[in-house]
Amino acid sequence: MPHVQPIEENEASPEVKEVFDDIKKLRQVEEVNNFWKYLANHPPTLKRTWESLKEVMQPGALDPLVKEMIYVAVSASNNCEYCIRSHTAAARKKGMTDEMFGELMAVVGMANETNRLVNGFQVELDEALRD
Amino acid sequence: MPHVQPIEENEASPEVKEVFDDIKKLRQVEEVNNFWKYLANHPPTLKRTWESLKEVMQPGALDPLVKEMIYVAVSASNNCEYCIRSHTAAARKKGMTDEMFGELMAVVGMANETNRLVNGFQVELDEALRD
Amino acid sequence: MPHVQPIEENEASPEVKEVFDDIKKLRQVEEVNNFWKYLANHPPTLKRTWESLKEVMQPGALDPLVKEMIYVAVSASNNCEYCIRSHTAAARKKGMTDEMFGELMAVVGMANETNRLVNGFQVELDEALRD
Amino acid sequence: MPHVQPIEENEASPEVKEVFDDIKKLRQVEEVNNFWKYLANHPPTLKRTWESLKEVMQPGALDPLVKEMIYVAVSASNNCEYCIRSHTAAARKKGMTDEMFGELMAVVGMANETNRLVNGFQVELDEALRD
Amino acid sequence: MPHVQPIEENEASPEVKEVFDDIKKLRQVEEVNNFWKYLANHPPTLKRTWESLKEVMQPGALDPLVKEMIYVAVSASNNCEYCIRSHTAAARKKGMTDEMFGELMAVVGMANETNRLVNGFQVELDEALRD
Amino acid sequence: MPHVQPIEENEASPEVKEVFDDIKKLRQVEEVNNFWKYLANHPPTLKRTWESLKEVMQPGALDPLVKEMIYVAVSASNNCEYCIRSHTAAARKKGMTDEMFGELMAVVGMANETNRLVNGFQVELDEALRD
Repeated sequence: MPHVQPIEENEASPEVKEVFDDIKKLRQVEEVNNFWKYLANHPPTLKRTWESLKEVMQPGALDPLVKEMIYVAVSASNNCEYCIRSHTAAARKKGMTDEMFGELMAVVGMANETNRLVNGFQVELDEALRD
Repeated sequence: MPHVQPIEENEASPEVKEVFDDIKKLRQVEEVNNFWKYLANHPPTLKRTWESLKEVMQPGALDPLVKEMIYVAVSASNNCEYCIRSHTAAARKKGMTDEMFGELMAVVGMANETNRLVNGFQVELDEALRD
Repeated sequence: MPHVQPIEENEASPEVKEVFDDIKKLRQVEEVNNFWKYLANHPPTLKRTWESLKEVMQPGALDPLVKEMIYVAVSASNNCEYCIRSHTAAARKKGMTDEMFGELMAVVGMANETNRLVNGFQVELDEALRD
Repeated sequence: MPHVQPIEENEASPEVKEVFDDIKKLRQVEEVNNFWKYLANHPPTLKRTWESLKEVMQPGALDPLVKEMIYVAVSASNNCEYCIRSHTAAARKKGMTDEMFGELMAVVGMANETNRLVNGFQVELDEALRD
Repeated sequence: MPHVQPIEENEASPEVKEVFDDIKKLRQVEEVNNFWKYLANHPPTLKRTWESLKEVMQPGALDPLVKEMIYVAVSASNNCEYCIRSHTAAARKKGMTDEMFGELMAVVGMANETNRLVNGFQVELDEALRD
Repeated sequence: MPHVQPIEENEASPEVKEVFDDIKKLRQVEEVNNFWKYLANHPPTLKRTWESLKEVMQPGALDPLVKEMIYVAVSASNNCEYCIRSHTAAARKKGMTDEMFGELMAVVGMANETNRLVNGFQVELDEALRD
C-alpha cells in the first residue's frame, strides 16, 4: 500500500488547479514542486498552506532572503531534508552565497548547542530578562 | 540538593575570571549574564563556548542582527526560554523592531508547520533538489 | 561494518521466537515486520516493547483507530519515516480515510506552528489554566 | 526590557478587535485567552492564525474531541506547557475523561519511545511500506 | 480547572499503593517522588512505566551511573526540566562528580550542534557506514 | 542545483588540508570521513568544530566510550542517521558490545517516553529537586 501519491496537474480538480496556477504565476515556474502535489491530496490544506506561505514569505519588514534563511535554520534544527534542500535552493536564488550559508549553519549549530547547555545547567533568567 | 549554582565574579578562579573579563570588555557590560555564570562550573566549557560564540556571532557575510534572529528562530523551535528571551533582547538592541519580530515568528511558525506536513505526507525530493 | 542487522525468524532464539509467535497470532499476520526483527537483537527490549505496545494499543477508553492516529501525529512531529508509514498503514486498515488523514495532518501542522508561536511570544498561562 | 506584553481588549486596534470579537462569538467566551492577546502584537499573524485554526479545528471527518487530543499529543511531544494545558482543558470540555487522558498519554509516551528505537536501530522500511 | 493533581499515598487505591510500596522498597526511600504520584492518575501507565524503568535501569552491561547520565543527556536534548533535575540528582547519588557533569554537558552540547551541521550540509553516508 | 558537495583532499585549500591532516594523524586513519569533507565548504566551521570535538571527546573524567554512547543517545533522540551510524561505529571500535548497545537504546527509549509523560501530566518539581 503506497503511503501518499502526488497529484499531477493533469489529474487535478478545479480547486487544486486554481492553487497550482496561482503558485506558477507568482513564482514564475512552469510546474509546481512536489510539496504542493502531495498537499493536493487534501485541498483545504493545500489552499490554506499556500495562502499562508504567500502572505508570510512576501517582502515586509524582513527581506525575503532573510526569511528563507530563517526557514533553513528551523528546517535544519528539525531535520527535514526536503525543507532544508528546497529552502536552501530558494535562498541561493535570492542571493545567498556559500559564505552566507556557512555562517548560517555555524549559527544554527551554536544555537542548538547552547540551547542544550542552558537546559542542562538549568540557567536561571537574569533579572533583566524577566517581564 | 541544588542542581547547579552560578559562579559569581568574586568567587571565580583566575581562568574563569579571564573569560568573564573578555566578555565584559567585548560586550561593554558591567556584569556577565547568568549563562556564563552557570557555565563557569566547567571552565573548559565556559572558555570553549565563549571563544566559539565570539567567532560565530561576529560581523561577517551575515550581519549580526540577522544572526541574532536566526538564534531566536532556533531557540523558539527548541523551546528554550532563556535563549529566546536573551537573544530577542540582543536582537532588539541591534535594531529589531516589533514588526520584524512579528514576521520572524510568522516564518518560524510556518516552517515548523510545513516541516511536519512534509514529514507526514512523505513528500519525495523533486529531481531538481537532488545532488 | 553494518549498523544492526534484522534477526529473521529462522535464526531466532526460543525467547525471540516466542515473542514473534505472539505478534503473528495477535495481529494475524504471517511474518512480523522489520521493527520487531531489529529489536530482536536485544531480546529484553523486544519483549518489553511488545508487551507494552500490546497493552497500550488495545481497545479501551480510546478506540484503536484514534490511538493509531495519535501515533502518526507524534511520529510526524518527530520525523520518524518508518513510524509514520507503518502507523499510517495501520490506521488505514482500521478505517482512516484520505479525508481523515488530511485533517490529521492539518491539525499536526497547526499544533507544531502554534507551539512555536507560544514559545516565541512567551505567552503567559491564563489564570484559568493554572493549578 | 520586557519580552512581549499582551494586548488587552481595551487597547486593541480595530483590526485586532475584530478578530477578538470573532473568537469570543464563536467560542462563546467573554474574554479571549492570553494566546490571542500576545499574538495581537503582530495583527497579520493574529488574523491568519485565527482563520487557520477556525478552519482546521471545526468538525469534519474527525470530530473536534479527537482533534483536541491530537493537539495535546503534539504539544506533549514538543513540551509546550501553555499548549498542553489549554488543549487538555479544551478536550475535557468536549468530553475527554481521566481514563481517555491516561490512554492518550500512554500512546504519546510509547510513540516517543519507539520512534527512537527505530532511529537507533536504523530499522529499514518493510517492502510493504514502500511506495 | 486544574490540569492533573498528584495522588498522595493516603488516597491511593490498592493497585497504586502496591506500586508505590515496590518503589519505596527498591529505592529505599520513605516517599515516592512526584513523577509517580502524577502517573498514579492512570494506574496501568503507573504500573507499566515502573516495571519498565525497573528493568531498564538495573545494573547490566552498562553500569547504573552511565545509564543515569544517558538519561540526563536525552532529557537535556528534549528540555524536560523535571527529568534533567531528577536524573542529575540520581546520577550524583551514584557518584557523578561536577567534572563528570561538565563533560556530560559538553558532549550533549556538541552532539546537538553537529547533528544540525550534518542536517544542514546534508552529509552523505560514507561507504563504510552503510549496511 | 546540487545542495553542497564534499571537498576532497586533493582539492582542499591549505587551511582545510591542515585540519584534514590533524584529523588523520590523531585518529590514525588514511582519509577523513564525509562529515569533514562537507564542513570544508566553510573552513572556519571546519576548524572550530574539529578543535571543539578534539577537546570534548578526549579522555577526561568520562571515558571515551561513555562519551561516544552519549553521542549516540542524543543522535537517536534527534534522528540524525549519519550521527547515529558514525558514533555507533566509533563506540564499537572502543569496545561497545551488542548487549551494551541494546541497553543504551533501552535507556534512550525510556527517557524519551518518560520525558513526554512528565510533560503531559505536567509533573511539578519535588521540593528536593528545587534550588
